Amino acid sequence: VGKGELTRRAILDQAVAMAARVGLGGLTIGGLATITGMSKSGLYAHFDSKESLQVDVVEHARDAFVDLVVGPALRTPRGEPRLRALFEHWLAAGLARQPGCTVLVQSAMEFDEQVGAVHDVLVRDHRDLHETIAQIVRTAISEEHFRDGVDPEQFAYDLYAVMLGVYHASRLLDDPRARIRARNAFEALLVAARR
Amino acid sequence: VGKGELTRRAILDQAVAMAARVGLGGLTIGGLATITGMSKSGLYAHFDSKESLQVDVVEHARDAFVDLVVGPALRTPRGEPRLRALFEHWLAAGLARQPGCTVLVQSAMEFDEQVGAVHDVLVRDHRDLHETIAQIVRTAISEEHFRDGVDPEQFAYDLYAVMLGVYHASRLLDDPRARIRARNAFEALLVAARR
Repeated sequence: VGKGELTRRAILDQAVAMAARVGLGGLTIGGLATITGMSKSGLYAHFDSKESLQVDVVEHARDAFVDLVVGPALRTPRGEPRLRALFEHWLAAGLARQPGCTVLVQSAMEFDEQVGAVHDVLVRDHRDLHETIAQIVRTAISEEHFRDGVDPEQFAYDLYAVMLGVYHASRLLDDPRARIRARNAFEALLVAARR
Repeated sequence: VGKGELTRRAILDQAVAMAARVGLGGLTIGGLATITGMSKSGLYAHFDSKESLQVDVVEHARDAFVDLVVGPALRTPRGEPRLRALFEHWLAAGLARQPGCTVLVQSAMEFDEQVGAVHDVLVRDHRDLHETIAQIVRTAISEEHFRDGVDPEQFAYDLYAVMLGVYHASRLLDDPRARIRARNAFEALLVAARR
């Protein structure tokens, strides 16, 4: 990794943190210049336009989510233990307001009906995530942790909904029981999948 | 209801529809003037500031949600039938992108960590909604549709998460199975509450 790439990553770290605060739509080359202390022309050397900056921010946020949540889960045993590891790492990152995790969830809602490259990369990343969850559920069935007949795509939908719920409860409602609510919901999904 | 109040409601209908498209943060007195064909000074006669406009828009969206979702549910028999009516009306409004419903969900995420009157009214409305759901669950327990020991607040959390999930699946992912995913998740909540 060269110096240019290290600089680019350092800028993107700050851009993801900024987007977590003001939204991806509120992220501008000018605002990023103020925060990083770089000139706008220096930033344009790394990002062609506001849209390409936003796309790079989504991809950087996705990389952080993979490093913190998906990667550690994939290093645990297949099946239910892996699903639990995914859930626990995701819950911890969400409750800690990890910027990459925040940006992925917030931007998905912010750009859900917009047209363009940012929307498209968000759709691709979320489809990837759903497919990753469904695949772990399939291994839980083949390992006989879950019964045959569990629908992996439905489970992925249900788990993502639980994570949106904890995001809502912890942030808007500042609910001190958000963590236990999410755990209860997750355990109920496991119980239904086992029986 | 006088003419001034009718005008105010007609403006708020358009303001809610605009906020559903551009977000509550993107709603301005100037933008609303363009859409309604009214002068900015005419609008300032109804709304003191951008923030008071945003608060009124949230309250108008909440009224639409109560008219379309909560009200019809409260006119059905207590307990599980009422819970099902709430779910079905909410799902229909969500999938139809009913503007009031959209604004309540979107704004909750947009303003979740902001400080001020808009945040406060959103928190109050969502707490009300959670309490409404929990109360219907309590009647389902007293009517013996659900077993004792079902946690009404947990059920409210779970149902809200299901609705966030369908919002995500239908809008960002454009998933044609969003409706069936939401129904499956709701039926699983009922099965777990009955057993």
